[in-house]
Formats: sequence, C-alpha cells, structure tokens
Amino acid sequence: MKEYEFNSVLIIGVGLIGGSLALALKEKNIAKTIIGLGRNKERLIEAQRLSIIDEYTLSPKEVEKTDLVILATPLGIFEKITKEISPFLRPGCILMDVGSVKQWVVKTLEKIIPSGVYFIGTHPIAGSDKTGFEHAKGTLFKGAKVIITPTDKTHKEALDKITKMWENLGAIVEYMSPEKHDSLYALMSHLPHLISFCLVNTVDRVDKNSIKYAGSGFKDTTRIAKSSPEIWKDIFLLNRDNIINVLHVFLDSISEIKYYLKNNLVEDKIEEFILRAKKLREELD
Amino acid sequence: MKEYEFNSVLIIGVGLIGGSLALALKEKNIAKTIIGLGRNKERLIEAQRLSIIDEYTLSPKEVEKTDLVILATPLGIFEKITKEISPFLRPGCILMDVGSVKQWVVKTLEKIIPSGVYFIGTHPIAGSDKTGFEHAKGTLFKGAKVIITPTDKTHKEALDKITKMWENLGAIVEYMSPEKHDSLYALMSHLPHLISFCLVNTVDRVDKNSIKYAGSGFKDTTRIAKSSPEIWKDIFLLNRDNIINVLHVFLDSISEIKYYLKNNLVEDKIEEFILRAKKLREELD
Repeated sequence: MKEYEFNSVLIIGVGLIGGSLALALKEKNIAKTIIGLGRNKERLIEAQRLSIIDEYTLSPKEVEKTDLVILATPLGIFEKITKEISPFLRPGCILMDVGSVKQWVVKTLEKIIPSGVYFIGTHPIAGSDKTGFEHAKGTLFKGAKVIITPTDKTHKEALDKITKMWENLGAIVEYMSPEKHDSLYALMSHLPHLISFCLVNTVDRVDKNSIKYAGSGFKDTTRIAKSSPEIWKDIFLLNRDNIINVLHVFLDSISEIKYYLKNNLVEDKIEEFILRAKKLREELD
Repeated sequence: MKEYEFNSVLIIGVGLIGGSLALALKEKNIAKTIIGLGRNKERLIEAQRLSIIDEYTLSPKEVEKTDLVILATPLGIFEKITKEISPFLRPGCILMDVGSVKQWVVKTLEKIIPSGVYFIGTHPIAGSDKTGFEHAKGTLFKGAKVIITPTDKTHKEALDKITKMWENLGAIVEYMSPEKHDSLYALMSHLPHLISFCLVNTVDRVDKNSIKYAGSGFKDTTRIAKSSPEIWKDIFLLNRDNIINVLHVFLDSISEIKYYLKNNLVEDKIEEFILRAKKLREELD
C-alpha cells in the first residue's frame, strides 16, 4: 500500500495558490485526501467538481481530522481564522501559511496555536495577477523559490517535513528570518506592485482615455496592477514600515533622474543611470 | 511588370525598427530596393547577408537615388544626419522618421529639409527592449498603432502615401498633433520607462544581490529597463517637459498611497486605490 506523507491536508482558502497546492500535492502523491475550507459553499462545490479538492467543509472543526493545515487566504484574516481553528488542531499537526508577509504572521500565529501544534511560515514566489482556483496549476511551484522563515520556536522535524514537501513539488527552498524576508520582498515585490498601481492611477488622473494608446511596455509594467485589491491591501498594511523604507529609496532614484533631466549639462549621467538599471536587470535573463 | 509604391527606399539606422521596416516593405512588395545607411560597415554587411537590406552604403550622398528616406537612428543624431543628407535629397522625395518624440523632431527637421522634399513624422508603437536587426520581424507593425503627426506644412499627397504604406504593413494609423503625441506618450511610454529604470536602480541602491529573489511581477515590471540607454537618453531629454509634468502626477499618486499607508484609519482607501488601478488596467485586456 502506498504511503502518503500526509494522510489528510486541509486548505483554507482555495484560490490560485491554495488550489495549485491542492493539485500539486495530489499529483505528487504527497497527500491522500485534500479538504477545502472556505466561506463560499458554491465556490467550494465548484472546486470539488473540478477535482481540485476531494472534499469541502465550512466548519473550522474539520481541522481535527488533518495532519497539515495550509493557510492560503488573504493575510488580513489569518489571525481570526487561526483563533477559530486552534481549539480543534490535534497535537502533531502542522499549520503552514503561504502569505507574502512573514514577520507579523509568524509572530502572531506562533502566539495563538496550542502547544504540540507546529507552525511553519512559508512564502512561495509564484503568484500571478490572476486569482481563483480556475487558474490553479499543479506545476505552479516547479522551479519557483519558496522562502521558509524558521524561528527559535520552530519544530525541527516539522520544518524538515515542510521543506521536503516543497522540494517534492519542484520548489527551490531557502531559509531566511521573517525580518530579512519582509525587507527583501518589500523591495522585490511589494514596491513594484505599489509602483504599478500608482502608474495606472497616474493615467487615471491625467486622462483615462489615454489607456488605449498603451504599447507593450506599459502593458508589461502594469500587468501586476490587475492583482487582487483584497490581497494587496493586507500585504501593504502588514509590511508597511519596510515598504515605506524602500519607497524612500525609490523616491531618491526619481530625484536623481529628475535632477539630470532638469540639467542638460549632465546628459551622460542619464545614459549612465539607464545603463546601471539595464545591467542589473539583465542579470535576471 | 509589378509596380512598386517606392522604387528605392533608404533606411538610416538598420536596427530593430529600421530592420523590421526593411523586411516588411519587401514582404509586402512596397519597395523594390532597400538600401541601408549606417556608421558601422560590418553591421551593414551582416544585415545584407541576412537579406534584411539589399544594398548598403556609408555615404549620405546615396539618398539622391531614393524616393523615400526613413530615419530610424536614435533621436539625438536626427538633426546632424538630416543636415548631412539634405543637399542630396531629390525633389519629390519623402523623408519619414520613426522617432518616439515628435514635437522637437518635426519642428527641427521641417526647418532643415530643402523645399520640394516632404517630411512626415511617424511613431510606430511597436518597440521592444531588444535592439539590433537580429530581432527584426516583418510582422512587427501588424496590428500596431502608428501615430502620424502632420502639421500645416505637411504635403497632402506625401501624407496619404505614408499613411497607405503603414496601413499596408498592417498598422492602425492615427493622426495627432506633435504636441498631443508628446504629452500622450510621456504618460503612456516615457514615464513607465523612467519608473522601470528607477525601480531597478532602487534594488541597485539597497542591495544588488536581492535581484536573484525576483519573481514574475518584478520581471515584468522591469522588462523595459533593459531598453537601450542611447535611445532612451535622447527620448528623455527631447520630451523632458512633458515627462516632468506626468512625473509630478505620478508623485502625487505615490503621496496618496503613502498617506493611506501611514494612517491605518483609511484602510478602505488602500483597497479603493488598488481597485481603481485594477479596473483601468483591465480595460487593456
């Protein structure tokens, strides 16, 4: 008989990430049964119909059946949900989140969960501007970085198990402190999202009708401006200080190029400024 | 015998746009012979070897053989080149540019060209972060917008001929004043490029090594930061006032979201701010 790493996995929030995890854990035979928990019954029935989850429930009590609970809702309700499920989490169960902010999440959830339950904070770098399980894919995490943020409270065996799980899904796991994660992703993800929203809102302010003149440059630069307001509002608020810090550095960069523009004498500086960006960006290809 | 719209077309600057035009004009049988003019002999020989151009020359005098001269170099040398070729342009010849800034170009070139030669300013909205004729494609302009910026000095027949030419290449032509063009594309193209360069330079300032943690959001938002410094320095300098204007509106948008971030009481405002961007951006899909 086949041995599964997890007999029963419960996913709270069956959206793009939760749904993709559900598919991946089944495809790789890591979980025997996937239960979806959510607030919208019709959506859960649809996810079951599409074979993304095996079962669904609206009741937090169902976590008592499971070895692994995955928190994949918007960040803003993590605390409320964890409080609701905590009385039912059985000893030895792992609670893992996939939120884009880690310091607040890890600190808050580690306080709430009962002893004997192991919390592991993770952040798969594999989002999309698309939302909903309709866009879920079992291969979403293949080749993607997954940051795991252990603390001195982290249970070693649970950490190993979750690391192995992500690696089995094809992810490249890296450990980092929650603090380091949040300053790094304020820079590499939260700031670009904020800038992208601001860029589209600049068009909104100047003249909405200009949008139809967009070329591929504008489209690429603002693809992520289609991201979910519900998800991103929470990320912005929960990583606010780091985001404001990198925003100030960004504004320094704006001031630099603005100074060059206003002073024709520093024409070479503009080319240098652009070349600096080009060179660093090309490291990604 | 086949009749060509242009017997001989000379393209100055056989790069991505110039090379793509060369290919498209041949594929659609619009030009009989394409001559490439440039500063680098080896590159021109290579373009000829790849059948992008039929002939090449290093001499401005060669324009005397042609019906249509296309200016496709970086903007910064338009004035110098037009002065060099002007003595040799034959009456009835059309000089067309494909530069991303129009007000300065149109005003400057209309003054230089001899009477009897017709200047038409155009801007195909079909760039790329890639440069060089190796990336040229005859289909680059299919379905793309091409802005043509006539003035009261524009020769009606030459305008019709160039309009028809672009339409035959599959482009959607729109007329606009050079002033309107420059304020529109400061917003829809030049600002996004500037922001994209600033975003990468923010990573450069904070910690270069962070670049390897980029996800798809960062990559898309900064794809255009790989654009040519030579081309973009000129665009920034020659459309400076419009760019600084829209940059100020962008900075107002930044101030708005920063205010919301700093004041938890306006949490709904953040979601509204993001939703405003999302809605407008979704009009593009």
